[in-house]
Amino acid sequence: MNIVQNPTNTEAVKEIKSSNNNAQDGIYTLVTSYGESYQTFCDMMTDGGGWTLVASVHENFMAGKCTVGDRWSSQQGNLGGGGVDYPDGDGNWANYATFGLPDGATSDDYKTPLNLWRNSSLQRFRTNNSILNQQGGNLFSLYKLFPVTYNVGRCPKDNGPTVPVVYDLGSPARTASFYSPDVTDQFTPGYIQFRSINNERAPLALCPGMKIEKCNAEHFCVGGGGFFPEADPKQCGDFAAYDFNGYGTKRGNSAGKEITEAAVLLFYR
Amino acid sequence: MNIVQNPTNTEAVKEIKSSNNNAQDGIYTLVTSYGESYQTFCDMMTDGGGWTLVASVHENFMAGKCTVGDRWSSQQGNLGGGGVDYPDGDGNWANYATFGLPDGATSDDYKTPLNLWRNSSLQRFRTNNSILNQQGGNLFSLYKLFPVTYNVGRCPKDNGPTVPVVYDLGSPARTASFYSPDVTDQFTPGYIQFRSINNERAPLALCPGMKIEKCNAEHFCVGGGGFFPEADPKQCGDFAAYDFNGYGTKRGNSAGKEITEAAVLLFYR
Amino acid sequence: MNIVQNPTNTEAVKEIKSSNNNAQDGIYTLVTSYGESYQTFCDMMTDGGGWTLVASVHENFMAGKCTVGDRWSSQQGNLGGGGVDYPDGDGNWANYATFGLPDGATSDDYKTPLNLWRNSSLQRFRTNNSILNQQGGNLFSLYKLFPVTYNVGRCPKDNGPTVPVVYDLGSPARTASFYSPDVTDQFTPGYIQFRSINNERAPLALCPGMKIEKCNAEHFCVGGGGFFPEADPKQCGDFAAYDFNGYGTKRGNSAGKEITEAAVLLFYR
Repeated sequence: MNIVQNPTNTEAVKEIKSSNNNAQDGIYTLVTSYGESYQTFCDMMTDGGGWTLVASVHENFMAGKCTVGDRWSSQQGNLGGGGVDYPDGDGNWANYATFGLPDGATSDDYKTPLNLWRNSSLQRFRTNNSILNQQGGNLFSLYKLFPVTYNVGRCPKDNGPTVPVVYDLGSPARTASFYSPDVTDQFTPGYIQFRSINNERAPLALCPGMKIEKCNAEHFCVGGGGFFPEADPKQCGDFAAYDFNGYGTKRGNSAGKEITEAAVLLFYR
Repeated sequence: MNIVQNPTNTEAVKEIKSSNNNAQDGIYTLVTSYGESYQTFCDMMTDGGGWTLVASVHENFMAGKCTVGDRWSSQQGNLGGGGVDYPDGDGNWANYATFGLPDGATSDDYKTPLNLWRNSSLQRFRTNNSILNQQGGNLFSLYKLFPVTYNVGRCPKDNGPTVPVVYDLGSPARTASFYSPDVTDQFTPGYIQFRSINNERAPLALCPGMKIEKCNAEHFCVGGGGFFPEADPKQCGDFAAYDFNGYGTKRGNSAGKEITEAAVLLFYR
Repeated sequence: MNIVQNPTNTEAVKEIKSSNNNAQDGIYTLVTSYGESYQTFCDMMTDGGGWTLVASVHENFMAGKCTVGDRWSSQQGNLGGGGVDYPDGDGNWANYATFGLPDGATSDDYKTPLNLWRNSSLQRFRTNNSILNQQGGNLFSLYKLFPVTYNVGRCPKDNGPTVPVVYDLGSPARTASFYSPDVTDQFTPGYIQFRSINNERAPLALCPGMKIEKCNAEHFCVGGGGFFPEADPKQCGDFAAYDFNGYGTKRGNSAGKEITEAAVLLFYR
């Protein structure tokens, strides 16, 4: 066991790696400034290491439209009522516990043994600017600035920031290859986009590997609020409308099977 | 990290404080007599300190009537069938794991960083008699004596015990101020009441800050069983019928917005 | 606290016992080969001790047919659609996290204080051959070979393996006594059966104490996939159709009340 006590945990994980260049990928026990310890996976290899897993988003059941397990959107159904019923969904993108204490976010979300993570990943990319520093320091503060809330703004003018990524595995072309040609037409790969609002004013939390060009983010971005007006309830879920024209078909607006069944793992350092 | 091993954990937390008068509020790791360790927040300041957080009750989604997240009443809907279908609800008021092992109860329920707890609280009060000692020693034993079960008795004769409180923040008048005048008329502030049965024989687990005078406990008490007959399903949920005449309106039978959005944190010592 | 670090945790628990013959039943902290620590209950008494609790299956709400809490079958309802909608259910019988990291499986599932486990058990039995070694080494690998998936095969030819058990408490006759005579007629007690497919091609994960003789496993086996065709949705749930002819009646196809309200605890060594 590796136990680390430090007010800033991602700093601590960087320090583990810099003080011990042989530190390996694995589960590390971190301690928050309030004294709470938690375990999470750290990537000690990519670009010098020092990365802490802070969230894992995957679709537990594609056909379940905002049902049990859709913690990154809503577990209460697609709730309209003029959009006032459940605009934030389960609210986990702006929940202190989620990103402040990562164990809540990740503990039951691992889909594969973590030692297989690197070799089973479809693509791996990272930012190399200080995007989060500019937005308050972490995803919690970013999503306070850009709430994942229904009807909070319009696309494209109120979308959140985008940032280019560096690929450790894959390429912009490979990112695009996981989606249907009709969908690929809607984004530019090689970026991350935060809080993308769709044509119907439903927010998507994160576009993993692209920035949007047209406002149909529900076909390639993940996470969201509690109401997706279009084709109610067909777009509501952690992977939104990845299955809009059938599960894994990679035709029309549907994503391919590989990306539909993937988990999006988010790391800080 | 503070690790404490002691058969009686609340005793242990008192001992931490008495042996180290500088012990601060924070997360402490406690170890049960069976050797299970768990982390929970301890209040080391109030009245000499030594308080352990054992449960946190809040309404995750007021409009969701006994849906996902309503762990202190029912997550299965408002289930009648002559009251026999789900009289105990999810049963967490009488679940050993809930109060016996506090981490189950609190781990994903923090709404704010715990360092903000004291300054963001609306009111703080405590008993100064030995109410729980008289009822078997803890909430688990108290609720064995007074089950949170539909149709287990009548109001007022079968209600559970009440106990006066001492305010560390607020006052009886302030407690009353969070509710509508129509509701204030139903209780006497300055108390805690356990297991209050309403007119329709639905039990409410806890009235935080008052004892009931009239039997409409669903408008100011929290937690309950799995069936609330009146206005089915409108009163079913962790904060029962706080929104009976609209969310946060503080009119008719509705509570005000502040108390509707608060969490009720329960500490032992 | 007992902290154990070892690549093979069940090996480690055996080693605790063999190095310290006085090791008692209780919660032990184990560390996986990836460095993740978790706590679980160990039985240090039965047949020389060294047993690790890896899962606990019980029916949280018998009348809830694949609703919240039915993690060992489906929490999404009984989902047909030609059987293609949700054939694996929640998939926890083949989830690495469930058996690979036991805490996920057991942490909120204890029904009684664990010190009462031994004396409150209805029956206790164990295998004394190397059934799991023959099937890949653990339940995760066994259920990879015999998926708990709707329509994956037919009864009896595609059922999983059976293995005789040794009773530490009870007997084959006592096992049979918990079920209705109509049900007893369907199995031979004194065995464990893995992945039993019923007449309608719904898989049951585990038959605790018996091997099937007729293909109505839904009345005595537990756990399953996400679709039970017969009497839709009446057979869907962690304890399937234990209540087919009424709750706890022990008449017709219904099990008795004691076994309906029991938890099935699974230990490795």
